[in-house]
Amino acid sequence: MTLFSIKSRTPLNTSFLLQPMENGATKKISSEATKRWHFGPNDLLSAAGGRSIRGIIYKIIDNVDEQGPRPMVPLGHGDPSVFPSFRITTSAEEAIVESLRSAEHNHYPPSVGLLSARRAIAEHLSEKLPYELSPDDVFITAGCNQSIELVATSLARPGANILLPRPGYPMYETHCVFSNLEFRHFDLIPERGWEIDLDQVEQLCDENTVAMVIINPGNPCGSVLSYKHMEKIAETASKLGIMVIADEVYNHSNFGSKPFVPMGVFGHIVPILTLGSLSKGWIVPGWRLGWVVITDRKGILKETKVIDSITNFLEISADPATFIQAAVPQIIERTKGAFFERIVNLLRATAEMCYDKIKEISCITCPNKPEASMFVMVKLELSLLDGIIDDVDFCMKLSKEESVILCPGSALEMKNWLRITFAVEPSALELGLERLKLFCRRHEKKQSK
Amino acid sequence: MTLFSIKSRTPLNTSFLLQPMENGATKKISSEATKRWHFGPNDLLSAAGGRSIRGIIYKIIDNVDEQGPRPMVPLGHGDPSVFPSFRITTSAEEAIVESLRSAEHNHYPPSVGLLSARRAIAEHLSEKLPYELSPDDVFITAGCNQSIELVATSLARPGANILLPRPGYPMYETHCVFSNLEFRHFDLIPERGWEIDLDQVEQLCDENTVAMVIINPGNPCGSVLSYKHMEKIAETASKLGIMVIADEVYNHSNFGSKPFVPMGVFGHIVPILTLGSLSKGWIVPGWRLGWVVITDRKGILKETKVIDSITNFLEISADPATFIQAAVPQIIERTKGAFFERIVNLLRATAEMCYDKIKEISCITCPNKPEASMFVMVKLELSLLDGIIDDVDFCMKLSKEESVILCPGSALEMKNWLRITFAVEPSALELGLERLKLFCRRHEKKQSK
Repeated sequence: MTLFSIKSRTPLNTSFLLQPMENGATKKISSEATKRWHFGPNDLLSAAGGRSIRGIIYKIIDNVDEQGPRPMVPLGHGDPSVFPSFRITTSAEEAIVESLRSAEHNHYPPSVGLLSARRAIAEHLSEKLPYELSPDDVFITAGCNQSIELVATSLARPGANILLPRPGYPMYETHCVFSNLEFRHFDLIPERGWEIDLDQVEQLCDENTVAMVIINPGNPCGSVLSYKHMEKIAETASKLGIMVIADEVYNHSNFGSKPFVPMGVFGHIVPILTLGSLSKGWIVPGWRLGWVVITDRKGILKETKVIDSITNFLEISADPATFIQAAVPQIIERTKGAFFERIVNLLRATAEMCYDKIKEISCITCPNKPEASMFVMVKLELSLLDGIIDDVDFCMKLSKEESVILCPGSALEMKNWLRITFAVEPSALELGLERLKLFCRRHEKKQSK
Repeated sequence: MTLFSIKSRTPLNTSFLLQPMENGATKKISSEATKRWHFGPNDLLSAAGGRSIRGIIYKIIDNVDEQGPRPMVPLGHGDPSVFPSFRITTSAEEAIVESLRSAEHNHYPPSVGLLSARRAIAEHLSEKLPYELSPDDVFITAGCNQSIELVATSLARPGANILLPRPGYPMYETHCVFSNLEFRHFDLIPERGWEIDLDQVEQLCDENTVAMVIINPGNPCGSVLSYKHMEKIAETASKLGIMVIADEVYNHSNFGSKPFVPMGVFGHIVPILTLGSLSKGWIVPGWRLGWVVITDRKGILKETKVIDSITNFLEISADPATFIQAAVPQIIERTKGAFFERIVNLLRATAEMCYDKIKEISCITCPNKPEASMFVMVKLELSLLDGIIDDVDFCMKLSKEESVILCPGSALEMKNWLRITFAVEPSALELGLERLKLFCRRHEKKQSK
């Protein structure tokens, strides 16, 4: 089994902590070529692309010592599809095979997505809502990253701003930078199970604030918000005149005691755009199929023409393959009960293994046992370590010495924290955590022994 | 056989002749909702999305009379994948089946594309070049429309402008509007086999011009440029300090006597970005797999950091499904010779049928017999018609009375011309052209009889 294989990748981007640049600021390049030729780079793309988490992880992977411990253990990103234990049921794969072999889905898809796929997703998500979604409420995207692009692009009016969680998922910041949509961070509070600081949300909001983003179940915290807290989020957003963007890409990865409540339950209080995909629940990120779903009982998004922006975005954007869209009803149908149960049990076991092992490591503390998603946030106690400058330095040295990859908190606006992925093959996780422990022991301050 | 079926589509956009709006110009919407809520539409998206050719065609399809002639005949857009005669070889479909069933390609793809796919495309395109492309010269996209988005986005520096052909493919204008990249049109000259007016190119170009776009084989003209003319294009572009964007999505659809010359042949004269996809050559637009290929023998695009912009764009954009990328080497391998020969013969036959039939219609003239692609541009002689205002009116009435769909030239900046697709099942084409002839007869001016 190859634990992690990257066959080809983009040139490394070392500017991953770059602050957003002002639009129009063009870096000076002086060479013969730039005098002779009129074209040059789009600096807004550099500012946006430089924030990508993919680039950050690659940077750390590149520090792995070829002579170091083998195999490399990837606990930095959330893609367990390469591990045998996480493989999707073959009958879902066969749904795509049938769709492809029918030769009825080789044509261009409609820009908003195939009706059959929209209907199947509406029915699937309606199971947990107090009202029935219609296929018209569902817009198909090429994965949840494109759903995020859709949100940032559709809402980016001149002067507008959006409220994002800290820690969060950097693709939001990336697309805000690229769309010239100002973002402001509100904090998630570790002492309150990573609940949102709603007082801070109120303070940050002004008349140009258009939306707030919640990621529930939580990436990167592994947390699940309560019904009561979510109701308060909806009421606060409604009071402030902003919509809620609910990233529920981990809605099937809920293995703790708290029930998952879809934000759409509160669609009568505030307009909601819910983001999701097959990637995480079905463990097939490479299939690139996601969605944006509207729950907006009062038709506010239509009246304010936000729906027009969404359809215009989809009119000009890349589509997911038609034959994959056409297979969505069967993919959903064939991966019910047993598959999700298997994955949830697996995630629960690996999360517990991760939590228990971290308790044995003195320089790392975990404020909350993960209950969902594929990640946990842990705090680095630098005072207990010798010769480690910060979280990035920690990850770079861990990569070099132990071939273990973690995501530095700095990438998620949480300096001196770490994001650990537990969604890997259990044997690999055990190996990685053991090496992490050895690394921390080796770098412990003498006096703290 | 269903000739054309649209199961679901976006709301119709009637603003398809909208001029690009200034960024920041926000239309006033007054309602209770807009007072109560802070969000609203992104007007730049409306301006861009409103130009989409998909929206234009839908508008005309919507005018079909439900009681009118059946079946509807779609000669307005280029997607023959629904017709049995144009079906891709099943062994190419099986390449995807194998890739999917291996379960080795469910992971996220690298942002620039899978190395195996990049290598296969490099080898395939190198066959017609005087030098070998490297996999690093190839960037995988989610179809050629995303390749166009990549070009417009990567080159959109503040103040920059780009030269586009008239007539052309409206997705270029769409993405320029959205990226705030000014565009200027140069003409293709029907009397010279749709060659480019290079004097006009020189007049339009200033120090902020970054590139010129050529579409060869030609969409919408069905023309093929000669080696000599292309060499002159390269030399002109080099002299002007601009790069050439070569849209060669129809490089396999060349059925006339002129050989197709890839623009990359002139990569020693000027930097070239070549755009392509599986969509047209392999007749699988729904598979959403395209590319941008660099031929730049002097490394100018690297030195001017245009390559950085391309990789940054791909870092934050939607990817094509990994398992489809992984199948590309086998798809190319298994659709060589015989498949392309069958399609080329079919296109030659339908193009001739189209050309011959048009000669029988007095109010429509075709300046050049099509030699490639799936389209031909014909001129409407309004003076010979009664009660037809312009090309859009012609298409709307033809749709209503005869259930035949054509694309009005206005959508391609060519008022009172028509774009006709001949890439349809021969029986359907014959039916459609016969109805077109009847329609024209019925609307002929009395005195001209």
